Amino acid sequence: MFFASDNWAGAHPSIAAGLSAHTAGFSTAYGDGALDQTVYQRFSEIFEREVAVFFVATGTAANSLSLTAYNKPGGISFAHRESHIIEDECGAPEHFSGGSRLHAVDGPLGKIEPHNLDKAIGRFAGEVVHWGRPMAVSVTQSTEVGTIYGLDDIAAIAAIAKHHSVPLHMDGARFANALVALDTTPAEMTWKRGVDILSFGGTKNGCWCAEAIVLFDLDRAKELAFLRKRAAQLFSKSRFVAAQFEAYFKDGLWLDTARHANAMAARLAAAIEDSATAKLAWLPQANEVFAVIKKTEAEKLQAAGAAFYDWHRPHGFDGHIGEDELLYRFVTSFATTSEEVDRFGQLIAG
Amino acid sequence: MFFASDNWAGAHPSIAAGLSAHTAGFSTAYGDGALDQTVYQRFSEIFEREVAVFFVATGTAANSLSLTAYNKPGGISFAHRESHIIEDECGAPEHFSGGSRLHAVDGPLGKIEPHNLDKAIGRFAGEVVHWGRPMAVSVTQSTEVGTIYGLDDIAAIAAIAKHHSVPLHMDGARFANALVALDTTPAEMTWKRGVDILSFGGTKNGCWCAEAIVLFDLDRAKELAFLRKRAAQLFSKSRFVAAQFEAYFKDGLWLDTARHANAMAARLAAAIEDSATAKLAWLPQANEVFAVIKKTEAEKLQAAGAAFYDWHRPHGFDGHIGEDELLYRFVTSFATTSEEVDRFGQLIAG
Amino acid sequence: MFFASDNWAGAHPSIAAGLSAHTAGFSTAYGDGALDQTVYQRFSEIFEREVAVFFVATGTAANSLSLTAYNKPGGISFAHRESHIIEDECGAPEHFSGGSRLHAVDGPLGKIEPHNLDKAIGRFAGEVVHWGRPMAVSVTQSTEVGTIYGLDDIAAIAAIAKHHSVPLHMDGARFANALVALDTTPAEMTWKRGVDILSFGGTKNGCWCAEAIVLFDLDRAKELAFLRKRAAQLFSKSRFVAAQFEAYFKDGLWLDTARHANAMAARLAAAIEDSATAKLAWLPQANEVFAVIKKTEAEKLQAAGAAFYDWHRPHGFDGHIGEDELLYRFVTSFATTSEEVDRFGQLIAG
Amino acid sequence: MFFASDNWAGAHPSIAAGLSAHTAGFSTAYGDGALDQTVYQRFSEIFEREVAVFFVATGTAANSLSLTAYNKPGGISFAHRESHIIEDECGAPEHFSGGSRLHAVDGPLGKIEPHNLDKAIGRFAGEVVHWGRPMAVSVTQSTEVGTIYGLDDIAAIAAIAKHHSVPLHMDGARFANALVALDTTPAEMTWKRGVDILSFGGTKNGCWCAEAIVLFDLDRAKELAFLRKRAAQLFSKSRFVAAQFEAYFKDGLWLDTARHANAMAARLAAAIEDSATAKLAWLPQANEVFAVIKKTEAEKLQAAGAAFYDWHRPHGFDGHIGEDELLYRFVTSFATTSEEVDRFGQLIAG
Repeated sequence: MFFASDNWAGAHPSIAAGLSAHTAGFSTAYGDGALDQTVYQRFSEIFEREVAVFFVATGTAANSLSLTAYNKPGGISFAHRESHIIEDECGAPEHFSGGSRLHAVDGPLGKIEPHNLDKAIGRFAGEVVHWGRPMAVSVTQSTEVGTIYGLDDIAAIAAIAKHHSVPLHMDGARFANALVALDTTPAEMTWKRGVDILSFGGTKNGCWCAEAIVLFDLDRAKELAFLRKRAAQLFSKSRFVAAQFEAYFKDGLWLDTARHANAMAARLAAAIEDSATAKLAWLPQANEVFAVIKKTEAEKLQAAGAAFYDWHRPHGFDGHIGEDELLYRFVTSFATTSEEVDRFGQLIAG
Repeated sequence: MFFASDNWAGAHPSIAAGLSAHTAGFSTAYGDGALDQTVYQRFSEIFEREVAVFFVATGTAANSLSLTAYNKPGGISFAHRESHIIEDECGAPEHFSGGSRLHAVDGPLGKIEPHNLDKAIGRFAGEVVHWGRPMAVSVTQSTEVGTIYGLDDIAAIAAIAKHHSVPLHMDGARFANALVALDTTPAEMTWKRGVDILSFGGTKNGCWCAEAIVLFDLDRAKELAFLRKRAAQLFSKSRFVAAQFEAYFKDGLWLDTARHANAMAARLAAAIEDSATAKLAWLPQANEVFAVIKKTEAEKLQAAGAAFYDWHRPHGFDGHIGEDELLYRFVTSFATTSEEVDRFGQLIAG
Repeated sequence: MFFASDNWAGAHPSIAAGLSAHTAGFSTAYGDGALDQTVYQRFSEIFEREVAVFFVATGTAANSLSLTAYNKPGGISFAHRESHIIEDECGAPEHFSGGSRLHAVDGPLGKIEPHNLDKAIGRFAGEVVHWGRPMAVSVTQSTEVGTIYGLDDIAAIAAIAKHHSVPLHMDGARFANALVALDTTPAEMTWKRGVDILSFGGTKNGCWCAEAIVLFDLDRAKELAFLRKRAAQLFSKSRFVAAQFEAYFKDGLWLDTARHANAMAARLAAAIEDSATAKLAWLPQANEVFAVIKKTEAEKLQAAGAAFYDWHRPHGFDGHIGEDELLYRFVTSFATTSEEVDRFGQLIAG
Repeated sequence: MFFASDNWAGAHPSIAAGLSAHTAGFSTAYGDGALDQTVYQRFSEIFEREVAVFFVATGTAANSLSLTAYNKPGGISFAHRESHIIEDECGAPEHFSGGSRLHAVDGPLGKIEPHNLDKAIGRFAGEVVHWGRPMAVSVTQSTEVGTIYGLDDIAAIAAIAKHHSVPLHMDGARFANALVALDTTPAEMTWKRGVDILSFGGTKNGCWCAEAIVLFDLDRAKELAFLRKRAAQLFSKSRFVAAQFEAYFKDGLWLDTARHANAMAARLAAAIEDSATAKLAWLPQANEVFAVIKKTEAEKLQAAGAAFYDWHRPHGFDGHIGEDELLYRFVTSFATTSEEVDRFGQLIAG
């Protein structure tokens, strides 16, 4: 019953096998090998247009470099208050960019509320040196709290970003989970709705270590290559990432693993709804489930072998959390089994 | 006949198998899992004392973070003119540290000449704000040109560093190749000779992606953990690196692969010595061989399927390079076969 | 009727004369001259203990270097949402420190509310690499909205900072205005209440360009010297600043100019209270007055020769601002005359 | 006999008077006041074309921001090995730019040798991410060792910079001294010879604190405004700098003070040539004189009241310096008197 995080899993067997298949042989290093090139091409196919792809080591690197690709002195990027770049990256986006700022925007359930965004950016309009100025907007899809921006939501935020002449970044650490939940295409969920640059995560969805920046704004590609190298994020044996992505995309594996994770989350949510012990905080849309549980009950569950964390962040949850209760997060992944979920369901049944 | 670089190879089969063996199961993320802990412990055993270990994505990251662990405003690090940190890292060490400087020190055959080092550091003595001040010394073992610092050489450089109150960093991207060439122990080649922090590379010697900072100066460990995270170098599924190192160290695999690579280099050097076409530039001590060849001959060899690069850097070579000649570099690895070497030997025989 | 800012004035005649008096002669440069030394000593006398003094070019530099003196990777400094470091410095504090973060804390009327501060810092307790960690607390005395922290307020905030093991910085761009308003001593308002480092501003209170960092935590002095030089904030002819401070402190000039500015603000506030046109937003405690005025009326006043700005920032003001009204700021200085104030009073009398 | 540095002097009486003349009155702050505008216009007249002018606090700031105006990841700026940016700025240029590199180029007597420059830049051609890439060339006029680039020298260096697609920066901390020595115009010595950005120093030549960046490449002006503010180099009461420059330019004061300083250097050089004690190291062209003197003799001179420093830097001097001798630097300024020089001349006469 490992619901602590989707990065507690190892790798999907097909990913591991795919990597092993490229063990032998020689290949140009630093992202210029034949397999790398094939995988870059695969990304362009998947996104239905030419894209520039940059493998990096972590999601934090993908996010930090994506914002830094649009760096400017006095720059301010706008993101949800609970976003990973604000809450969980130790100031990496600020550090990579030499001190640009992240400005928290509020909105219910992990999603930027467009009106708040417009107002927040608007305060920095006019290129006034004292205040600094807008540099980028970043959305997380799916969000940190397991919710999803609809295609129109993305378009609405992109329109505001464009209105203020800044690019739209998407943190897609859980891109696939949102994609299959919306039953849409990568193109529709990104550049066709105004996304300029994307952190495309494979690690949480079954890879060992496969993160990429997908850049739609090709004019920035040359500079981003230098930014990545300067950030020590250019792998020598880059093909070990390419091999994972090759397997990830093959026969739609990435969509299958995401669908599975989402289904496990729905199953878990259903068990919670039926439970006497836990209350569903809000409806999960991807692979994260949030529930309000008495601390003493949660401790019992943990003692019984369930791994999950309390979620102490500010959040848009307007439901009631009692004095003796906490909000807890449960994350599912490709590796979560229905047996595990059901076992947990029995524990909380009451 | 792939002699272009030791990172053109893939992974050693045992490394690939070791990684695959950990595909399944759940584990704490971000370097805190059981396997990570085991591997950290393994490092301490190998180095015969407690060390702090930080996995990172690239050798450039290991070097840049190692120096940044000793960062100070106005700081100047001293390294050989041909060192990787100066020549091949796109300013990453400077960037990571917010602008510290790398000062090139000369010395024959890729090795810092102690007298030059002492003089170079000495110019910045006295903590004068205008000049900046010494921050670290960095040596590369084995060097960029396939030579090796003897144990006494390291001790001599460490003594100068200590005299000037700065730490000694070792760039060990090819640590194992030097270790087996000297037939010594990791402890003897590092902290027992005054090394404070080490970039320990596994990638070039048979891993997919396994680089670690080994910190002997444990007081710096807490800060380095933040530096690494802020640099987006903390892997979530860190065990994919741990698994490689586990296999790397098992039954001395890492020493075997290094010995093999060195032996192949020696075999290649012997072939070059016997050749009518190529002249050995200097005696290889690890897994890199440098030769002077006529450009037209080199092109023929490349056309015949040999991959290698010309080496256009400044170097301590005082031999003669004719108008129509160039200096070329050949790198061997765990994956180089004696058949390949012999085939190349026949090509250059005359 | 120049109420736009206290830096619209020139220099107090005594400051200008004091500077002119040191025009001739030769002196060691870079802050080591005899006059500099005398002035440093004067600071120590004024603060009733040994302090380290660093002249810098701007208040932004004083603030940014003060925080950077306590820099750490993943560091987060806490300041009021409307503070100058957050609102008006173009990201300089973040940039100087290579990306540390400023965290906005709320509180009424420009002052940090201690409970909010404790809660805000508390969220980053535990040295968790993902979150970053507390680095400093900064208070502004007097605040951006013309209010003042009482001595107990400062002590309360210092206690929270100490509890969380971070230093307390005071942005004293308008230090003198607060000092005379509280009728206390520099020592009582700073280190005796737990302040570790102070931006001591002379420019707004009658100097041309005289800003200093006053460091109580002497162990940090050596590093701060390098930080200042690296930030290009070390004046060669440093005595031009020293000469201003010499005149500033002579015969209590600085206290007189501050008292005058405060008195002019009180006179202006009284005129506003009596006015039919403008409503006092809150009671001024130093040299800034805020009033709610109809936009059309404000434009008339400006057309009649009064210079002042609308204040569009978030603020703790819970009074009513009508649809056709705005909040306006009026700043007085040593150079404000009672005639000016009275003339303005007549304009708004109704 | 103060020959230690041209920043040991105070201010020229006309500069002090000019500043005093603007003591009273109110004016828009932050460089937007009427006097600032007038002085910007004056710069455009002096340079015979529209220029963008940015006042800053120090020459180090002018240099660091000038290079940072052309910042790029992996950027490398080329300057003479003895240049101020390399030798005396504590890494400020690197820090301001988040880690760009300064590459030392050699050349006799403080001047970049064009062939060396071309070769140095050429090594980084091709936009290879590993190596970094050229970002700017910087020349110092007059140089750190009192020599001067001829107009053709500047054009030759500019041509190399242009060939490699990088801008040319001129560090003009002693701009006026070179200008009058060459008997040319500001336009001829800068943009007409290919200079893109200039650090224009007034401090060493008679001001208290008057440094400006003069930008010929107007497209960069908007960004430079943000860079300056972020670097805490935007003065609030900016008119205190403007007032100095107004007086500096009035009736050619700046040219007179520079001519005087140069004449005093020539007089000093003549005295040294006639001396039995000191040997002129090379012919001074501006306001710095270098001489080889026995240490014991130098100490006697210092004991007799002459202030000057030994010059311990690498230099292009190929003359003989004996075991018991050192190279010493003597700097003259607007404040040097012929009496002082003659008194020193008598001391060294023998």
